[in-house]
Amino acid sequence: MNLRKVRRTHYSSQLSKSLLGSKVSVIGWIEDIRALGGIIFLTIRDVMGKAQIVFTKERTPLELFEVVKKIPRQSVIMVEGKVKESKAKDFEVEVEGEKLEILAEAIHPLPIDPTGRVKASIDTRLDARALDLRNPSVAAIFKIRHHALQSIRKTFIERGFIEVNTSRIIGQAAEGGANLFSLDYFGKIAYLAQSPQLYKEQLTLSLERVFEISNFFRAEKSHTRKHLNEFISVDMEAAYFDENDAMEVAEDIIVNVFKDVSEQCKKELEILNYSPPKPIKPFKRITYSQAIEELRKDGININIGDDLTDSLLRIIGKKYNEFYFITEWPTKLKPFYIEVKEDNPEFTHSFDLQYGYLEIASGGLRV
Amino acid sequence: MNLRKVRRTHYSSQLSKSLLGSKVSVIGWIEDIRALGGIIFLTIRDVMGKAQIVFTKERTPLELFEVVKKIPRQSVIMVEGKVKESKAKDFEVEVEGEKLEILAEAIHPLPIDPTGRVKASIDTRLDARALDLRNPSVAAIFKIRHHALQSIRKTFIERGFIEVNTSRIIGQAAEGGANLFSLDYFGKIAYLAQSPQLYKEQLTLSLERVFEISNFFRAEKSHTRKHLNEFISVDMEAAYFDENDAMEVAEDIIVNVFKDVSEQCKKELEILNYSPPKPIKPFKRITYSQAIEELRKDGININIGDDLTDSLLRIIGKKYNEFYFITEWPTKLKPFYIEVKEDNPEFTHSFDLQYGYLEIASGGLRV
Repeated sequence: MNLRKVRRTHYSSQLSKSLLGSKVSVIGWIEDIRALGGIIFLTIRDVMGKAQIVFTKERTPLELFEVVKKIPRQSVIMVEGKVKESKAKDFEVEVEGEKLEILAEAIHPLPIDPTGRVKASIDTRLDARALDLRNPSVAAIFKIRHHALQSIRKTFIERGFIEVNTSRIIGQAAEGGANLFSLDYFGKIAYLAQSPQLYKEQLTLSLERVFEISNFFRAEKSHTRKHLNEFISVDMEAAYFDENDAMEVAEDIIVNVFKDVSEQCKKELEILNYSPPKPIKPFKRITYSQAIEELRKDGININIGDDLTDSLLRIIGKKYNEFYFITEWPTKLKPFYIEVKEDNPEFTHSFDLQYGYLEIASGGLRV
Repeated sequence: MNLRKVRRTHYSSQLSKSLLGSKVSVIGWIEDIRALGGIIFLTIRDVMGKAQIVFTKERTPLELFEVVKKIPRQSVIMVEGKVKESKAKDFEVEVEGEKLEILAEAIHPLPIDPTGRVKASIDTRLDARALDLRNPSVAAIFKIRHHALQSIRKTFIERGFIEVNTSRIIGQAAEGGANLFSLDYFGKIAYLAQSPQLYKEQLTLSLERVFEISNFFRAEKSHTRKHLNEFISVDMEAAYFDENDAMEVAEDIIVNVFKDVSEQCKKELEILNYSPPKPIKPFKRITYSQAIEELRKDGININIGDDLTDSLLRIIGKKYNEFYFITEWPTKLKPFYIEVKEDNPEFTHSFDLQYGYLEIASGGLRV
């Protein structure tokens, strides 16, 4: 087959009544196929959504009609045909198929049901990830991620931040090597960076405001769902900035991501049946010491200086079931580059941004 | 010092005659300082450019005047003062300093001259990279990179590509392990990805068009300047696309990057004294076999199937001193996922994008 001839005139989402009577070609994978005597209904899906294709016995050459009937689900096909009104409740219009080409025939039985109607375990799904990605709920997550990334960059760029790319292979285990993956770099030990921290600080000496969104690594065995050995980190660093300025940028990012995703991903949010929060800035701010005091009032035996573990954050997160900051962390819980408070060196100019019990960002004034 | 009070009202680039008589505060590092008897001229630089500050003996408290005189170059200062007309040829206006605060005092001797007037070796510069970044030519490269990145993303997004992030830690050495860094992953051998190739192919089965811009790794000892062990790769992958479609997107990216950078980075290009090319699409296309034939006409002993080494590409690059494609590479020189030609399986549906002798991209139709 000459792929050069394979062109769609329209995505599924572009089919509308304004095209009634027009000839179109669509490409997608078969999500559903129903042969009802003299008529075959195909639901095909492409990246933009789904379309209904109809082949009728009376208008289709017999040979083609028999082929269409037997195409395995999830096969990728191209169909040419005329747009006409549809009686189906999910579709305004449908395509009356005239030509059909099978671009890739699916081999059955399929390892999972990519429509998501038959549930599969996460392991089975990951083993058949390419097919799992055709589940509209899974694809929706990737599309929302895309829009979230663009929104975050927009917020940074509007505020004068410059995008940078720092090294992932580093020569020194700067923040203590225990959590770093190490590798052989032509006979020397090198490490995989767990953050661009020291690079981005240096960059601000000239570029003032920088950001990076990229993969970073942490060699921590973890039994929570909150930690990954490889993760995508959103990092920023700015000169002439204090922790309050950083918290304001964090607020802007969060507010804008939810706003932009809500506006740009209506279909994906509907597929996921998810209504995103509409956070309003400024977010609530409590100090670490206030958090400890609240826990003590609840009868929990905890001292100033103790870390707020996952189970403690779950208690706090129930009281602040939204976006909020926990500020002024103890010096001993923060890394060496966080500035201590002038009036009490046991505490720092620092913050964690929380969403309920989840820590989603942290930052502080640099030494 | 309370950093919360450190705020500029204007960047250097924002000072203009429309502000004459206004009080402003500026922040930057001292690039130059000249004390001429009763008057001190300071050139300060910030991320946006440079400004001239003037302190006169008659209007400045003696104590401050003596302090200003002795501030070491590259110290970071904040100055408050009034905007007035300047007689200096580089400046339309200058700031008549009234208050000055030293935010960070530079320690002399400096390891390098960040103005770039005194040249230093690349090793010395990298040892003092934070200071080297204050060299306007160095900072200009980072700013241009930023705009190039946004331009590339814009071209992708306008064409329906979805931004994805793939794993860098991988379990299999898919394209032969010789060029991969390996690491210990909790007792198993893992590798650092040299490209998102197989991930992005899988992603197109649902998302159709994806791109990723990120760090990748290649464990190759190299003596050329063209290869890095860690590099930023611009990757795309698309369904229902052939190599010609991919070449067209590559052309669009190149044309747009130069157009956008030329428009958005005038100051930086001036600092670098660089006029970017204005490539026009379509770029010239020659087949690999044509390239071999041309080399043979030049008396070079080379056979179909031999790789085009650096020195050979330099000869070809002299004839095509611009952007061009070399297409239809031999099957044995391309990886397993590149489709062979129907009419001659010794050659493939593939291309390299060249800029003179430099290979800057490659691609092809997938199996």
